[in-house]
Amino acid sequence: MLIDGMQCGFYDRQAFEGLRQGGVSAVTVTCGFWEDALESLDSLAKWRDLVRENADLAVIARGAADIEAAHRDGKVAVLLGFQNINCLQGRIRYVEFWAELGVRVLQLTYNNQTEAGGSCYEERDGGLTRFGREVVREMNRNGMVVDLSHVGPQTSLEVIEHSEKPVAVTHSNAMSLYHHKRSKSDELLKALAAKGGIMGCATYPNLVGDEYGASLEKWCEMVARTVDIMGIDHVALGTDRRYNAKKSDLDWVRMGRWTRGIDYGAGSATRAAPNATPTWCRDLEQFDCFASGLARAGFSAAEVEALTAGNWLRFYREVMGG
Amino acid sequence: MLIDGMQCGFYDRQAFEGLRQGGVSAVTVTCGFWEDALESLDSLAKWRDLVRENADLAVIARGAADIEAAHRDGKVAVLLGFQNINCLQGRIRYVEFWAELGVRVLQLTYNNQTEAGGSCYEERDGGLTRFGREVVREMNRNGMVVDLSHVGPQTSLEVIEHSEKPVAVTHSNAMSLYHHKRSKSDELLKALAAKGGIMGCATYPNLVGDEYGASLEKWCEMVARTVDIMGIDHVALGTDRRYNAKKSDLDWVRMGRWTRGIDYGAGSATRAAPNATPTWCRDLEQFDCFASGLARAGFSAAEVEALTAGNWLRFYREVMGG
Repeated sequence: MLIDGMQCGFYDRQAFEGLRQGGVSAVTVTCGFWEDALESLDSLAKWRDLVRENADLAVIARGAADIEAAHRDGKVAVLLGFQNINCLQGRIRYVEFWAELGVRVLQLTYNNQTEAGGSCYEERDGGLTRFGREVVREMNRNGMVVDLSHVGPQTSLEVIEHSEKPVAVTHSNAMSLYHHKRSKSDELLKALAAKGGIMGCATYPNLVGDEYGASLEKWCEMVARTVDIMGIDHVALGTDRRYNAKKSDLDWVRMGRWTRGIDYGAGSATRAAPNATPTWCRDLEQFDCFASGLARAGFSAAEVEALTAGNWLRFYREVMGG
Repeated sequence: MLIDGMQCGFYDRQAFEGLRQGGVSAVTVTCGFWEDALESLDSLAKWRDLVRENADLAVIARGAADIEAAHRDGKVAVLLGFQNINCLQGRIRYVEFWAELGVRVLQLTYNNQTEAGGSCYEERDGGLTRFGREVVREMNRNGMVVDLSHVGPQTSLEVIEHSEKPVAVTHSNAMSLYHHKRSKSDELLKALAAKGGIMGCATYPNLVGDEYGASLEKWCEMVARTVDIMGIDHVALGTDRRYNAKKSDLDWVRMGRWTRGIDYGAGSATRAAPNATPTWCRDLEQFDCFASGLARAGFSAAEVEALTAGNWLRFYREVMGG
């Protein structure tokens, strides 16, 4: 079994075939970044159609049991996620609606501050807000994963403290290993782990850097060091793999409708184009490399299983049930 | 001439008659608190209908010249304002749209943090955000008043610094005179004045307190002390008068759709009901009391004119043109 905590992009039948070939049993997909409530409903509708049209390959999962069933059936379990709370449009009561419609992962902020909290890309982060505390409570109640990947450091610490259930950084890396605004401090990662939380390690080149992105071996070394920080039970995969995304899609993800200027997101003016995906994990079909790579990095079979699937499965069961 | 920097509530013909009788030449009305873009368009449509149906009494003003013309014609000039940026729904390009549709005042946050900045009711305020800086720039370019009344202290200071045009606190009071989360520190008021900004002093009982709300004389004494802080050119009226608002309207203003709990806004658990409006300014027809009260408080005729109308008019001309 292999579980990827976060991917994004525009899936098609070929993607599901690639995921299956790569041995991926479950993946959280990104249904939206800046989309408001109505646009988010449309996105959900598209994802339902896509999975329905490829029902021989994929199934929408609402909990851990669904993932196990999909794995048994040789299908890809799709967990529906949003990387922003624009889909709530400020309505606390929409959390419940999204949960009933199958959304299982919600990030409190994408690259900009929201009504819930600060983003890692803002100059400062004022912490979890009044609305943010209510959103976390509602997500806890409705079995949704609170995602902190793009959330600011202060807000993240307060979510970890405030949440009644463990929370997740679905796709980031440790700041002590690669310094980036999207990376997480050791303090944060330890606090996350202490409350039963989990981080999915990203392969997205901008978040890995040249050293640890150079090869599968180096990337697995990064995972091993992350385990040194958080413990074996709290590290997993969250590749942030972008499938089938054009330049205009990247522009949407970075700029949405919030700026008249240019924003580079996880990139920079000198690295404006999306960095080339490392050849060792360029195709979804290659995703079976993680287990073998981690084994070669010295992890036992049980540890490899935890890192590649077991940790997410345990976490999902605790948060979502099933 | 008398200009009120902010009122809210549900106007009708009687309101316009009352405003005229009270000598009010111009008033900024609240078209929305939590309403998103489409709901805000509907609110604008209602305000247009209302003014059109009462064209003998009122006119929508887009700048200082419109206010002067309305005054000459014996009509009430209505400035359209929103107390939140939900009407933007995160779209920077909507600022221009709202300006073209006649909106002249926009508050960066109501009682909760927004994508633009922190609110005075949040525990902490992370300051003006990336989106917030762009919103201020667009508002400057489009002749809109940036309103800081409910905005947090740090965000407010940064807006004052960042804005290319003077900005306003349309309806608050000085914190050194009445301590309330909605009140403004002397530091802030002085920074505001130093950049040509202005504060409208509120009569809304929760924002005045028992001492200065006790009588017209006491309220005018508060204004005089505010002038001591900011200077005669930077103080004006911004009553925050709530017209024709029921309990359910107050609930909307306070709770919107953001909480499953109870929020008291400017009130408190022990003062849940809206405090009684002081009898000395209970009716719009009484608003001519301000000029006489301020004169009795020792202000010269020219000073009274500045406080009750001239300062807003000069400020509007600088920000909006016309």
